[in-house]
Amino acid sequence: MSTTEFDAVDVIQTKRDKGRLSDAQIDWVVAAYTDGIVAEEQMAALNMAILLNGMDRAEIARWTAAMIASGERMDFSGLSRPTADKHSTGGVGDKITLPLAPLVAVYGVAVPQLSGRGLGHTGGTLDKLESIPGWRAALSNAEMLAQLEDVGAVICQAGSGLVPADRKLYALRDVTGTVEAIPLIASSIMSKKIAEGTGSLVLDVKVGSGAFMKDVVRATELARTMVDLGTDAGVRTVALLTDMSTPLGLTAGNALEVRESVEVLAGGGPADVVELTVALAREMLAGAGVTGVDPAEALADGRAMDVWRRMIVAQGGDPDATLPSARETQTILAVADGVVVRLDAFSVGVAAWRLGAGRARRQDVVQPGAGIELYVKPGASVRAGEPIMTLHTDTPERFARASQALEHAVVIAPEGSTPPHRSLVIDRIVAR
Amino acid sequence: MSTTEFDAVDVIQTKRDKGRLSDAQIDWVVAAYTDGIVAEEQMAALNMAILLNGMDRAEIARWTAAMIASGERMDFSGLSRPTADKHSTGGVGDKITLPLAPLVAVYGVAVPQLSGRGLGHTGGTLDKLESIPGWRAALSNAEMLAQLEDVGAVICQAGSGLVPADRKLYALRDVTGTVEAIPLIASSIMSKKIAEGTGSLVLDVKVGSGAFMKDVVRATELARTMVDLGTDAGVRTVALLTDMSTPLGLTAGNALEVRESVEVLAGGGPADVVELTVALAREMLAGAGVTGVDPAEALADGRAMDVWRRMIVAQGGDPDATLPSARETQTILAVADGVVVRLDAFSVGVAAWRLGAGRARRQDVVQPGAGIELYVKPGASVRAGEPIMTLHTDTPERFARASQALEHAVVIAPEGSTPPHRSLVIDRIVAR
Repeated sequence: MSTTEFDAVDVIQTKRDKGRLSDAQIDWVVAAYTDGIVAEEQMAALNMAILLNGMDRAEIARWTAAMIASGERMDFSGLSRPTADKHSTGGVGDKITLPLAPLVAVYGVAVPQLSGRGLGHTGGTLDKLESIPGWRAALSNAEMLAQLEDVGAVICQAGSGLVPADRKLYALRDVTGTVEAIPLIASSIMSKKIAEGTGSLVLDVKVGSGAFMKDVVRATELARTMVDLGTDAGVRTVALLTDMSTPLGLTAGNALEVRESVEVLAGGGPADVVELTVALAREMLAGAGVTGVDPAEALADGRAMDVWRRMIVAQGGDPDATLPSARETQTILAVADGVVVRLDAFSVGVAAWRLGAGRARRQDVVQPGAGIELYVKPGASVRAGEPIMTLHTDTPERFARASQALEHAVVIAPEGSTPPHRSLVIDRIVAR
Repeated sequence: MSTTEFDAVDVIQTKRDKGRLSDAQIDWVVAAYTDGIVAEEQMAALNMAILLNGMDRAEIARWTAAMIASGERMDFSGLSRPTADKHSTGGVGDKITLPLAPLVAVYGVAVPQLSGRGLGHTGGTLDKLESIPGWRAALSNAEMLAQLEDVGAVICQAGSGLVPADRKLYALRDVTGTVEAIPLIASSIMSKKIAEGTGSLVLDVKVGSGAFMKDVVRATELARTMVDLGTDAGVRTVALLTDMSTPLGLTAGNALEVRESVEVLAGGGPADVVELTVALAREMLAGAGVTGVDPAEALADGRAMDVWRRMIVAQGGDPDATLPSARETQTILAVADGVVVRLDAFSVGVAAWRLGAGRARRQDVVQPGAGIELYVKPGASVRAGEPIMTLHTDTPERFARASQALEHAVVIAPEGSTPPHRSLVIDRIVAR
């Protein structure tokens, strides 16, 4: 394509003046940016104009297609199984991928989970699994396909050939205050999912203090935008809006969350983790055309655990190894008798991050044993002096800053109080 | 100032979310950008957020002050005369600075005109004067001050020490579609005028097809913003909104405009050029505290011409030298009998530019003799076959593209028609 065919300033001005970008403008600007022809400062101005003036459904679809075209696409059509993928927008204690992928694979559906590492207060799926001795995140495309055919589930690192435009754009958005643009968030997530080549996709869009989206209106807009994008690209897509005002389950941290996931795979575990795992499994199975089954059964009877063990082994991990634990712990006690009416997800996420479970910069190393173990959830009755949570870290100097983050995290109200009612699954958004 | 005191993303997000930037944020971001600490892409995103979400009067004043603080300031307080400056936002055939500066100097007011070169369809004052053999634009500060004291008027190139932030910002705005932001236009112009140290300032804000501002509402907003900025910085500032729907005078081009300016200084010249020169002179004289004089007299009696000649000589020019003329001309004839109801400034500006009077890129060289000579103005009666204008260029292959630009520039209506009425001075905006 000729570099003189379009002019970056014209494209920027179109969006600045609240116009629609043409297909040709979008194709050109995304490709030219990826190739370094459109400068970082030009894309930054365009991103800010998109954030403030928006894009319509067709523009977002084209933008996403242009991002996909910047790299390679994967192809699962050679598999003997249908594929179903799931993406979560990230939350505190969100270990759902771990029990979910093997659970869905039980029913003959291939589950390719190309995942990332954590940055900020939400954990990363790969960080969690890397606390299992021997487990490796990096697979070749051939290894990944073989594992999908053989085991049915794979959780691994996305290859660098997938949507290079997204890596460049994400780094730019991060430093230019343009992360929050819904068209850019949606196209970033969906370009990778569509390029992955899955047949169906379930989105877990978190809403609440611990989530990227703090309110239902914006979370719904993001979910709707992503469902439309998936649908327009021929991927059967559905989104669940789920509560992230309080952590999922009773753990936040890498090895701590693996342990809890294994409890769920063993038929136990916290009720909310089980509920969401089963709800998402149902959606994934329906998307892959599997109906008339109850995924709760495969958790109860050990079939999901079998697939989990094979999945971990296939990637070099030892499912029977002792998980790492932190060298130091500190337990926080209830200060009064009463009912826990608030246990704030964001505060717990920040505290776990500060304890060493997450990273502040991409190059940081996480502590596999660090994190927080909760003993109560909103609605629980406590007595003064009872333990509420235990903080885990290898570096005890971190306790102070973690505790700071937790200062207003727990609210205990007089006996007889009830926390505000919140459904775990708030809404379900389908193709229109 | 510590580089960790502020974060560029916070500043961008503040404006993105329609907040006010604090004084400290503005001071930091402008200084850090000038120093290369805030990246081009960050300033681009901030500029776009400013363009779309605006800045209030106090923010713009602080932004302008921060730009001024990026460089040196000039000081005219040692002069025995009061100073008055004028700035035009640029138009087609706008040679007013040439007769105006010497005219105002006649009355004992020092007129420092730090000017620029042309880019695009509007000419540059320095380009015009450089068509005078020997004349030089670059003066040291000492030379400039000496000439102001001695002659009273100087038109020269702005030194590079004045507002370095503006040079960097302007280059960025140019490639990121953020030139049109009124707070950024106003602070760009006014930072230089305030840093120059003038006591009073008259702004000629052009409005119409040949101007940067095409409509009165935006031109008024720009004028109001600049008058407020000047006033807040202690400079007596007034703005005239003047018509730029048709070229000023009967020439557009460098030597052609010098010739016309000399006609005005000799007591003749086109009525509109004389009218605007006298109107701006009155404002400048009033700003400098000189009242009860009629500047038209100093045009009529040769005193302005005397100062002009001294001003040109002081900068190495020969006021009696023959001005360069273009090697080739082509005359355009009226196609019908009737009344000229439209003679479009933008079209004439683009045609003169294409003939070689202006430059497309900063490094281009202009043709001193190139341009357009008009024989009619709106309201004139013409007969088919009479000359309407003559195109001048050294490079006759340019006639075709220049003529293209002029295709719809002239509209001749049946005898008895009148062009739409336009006052040359549309409005006057003063401190509030």
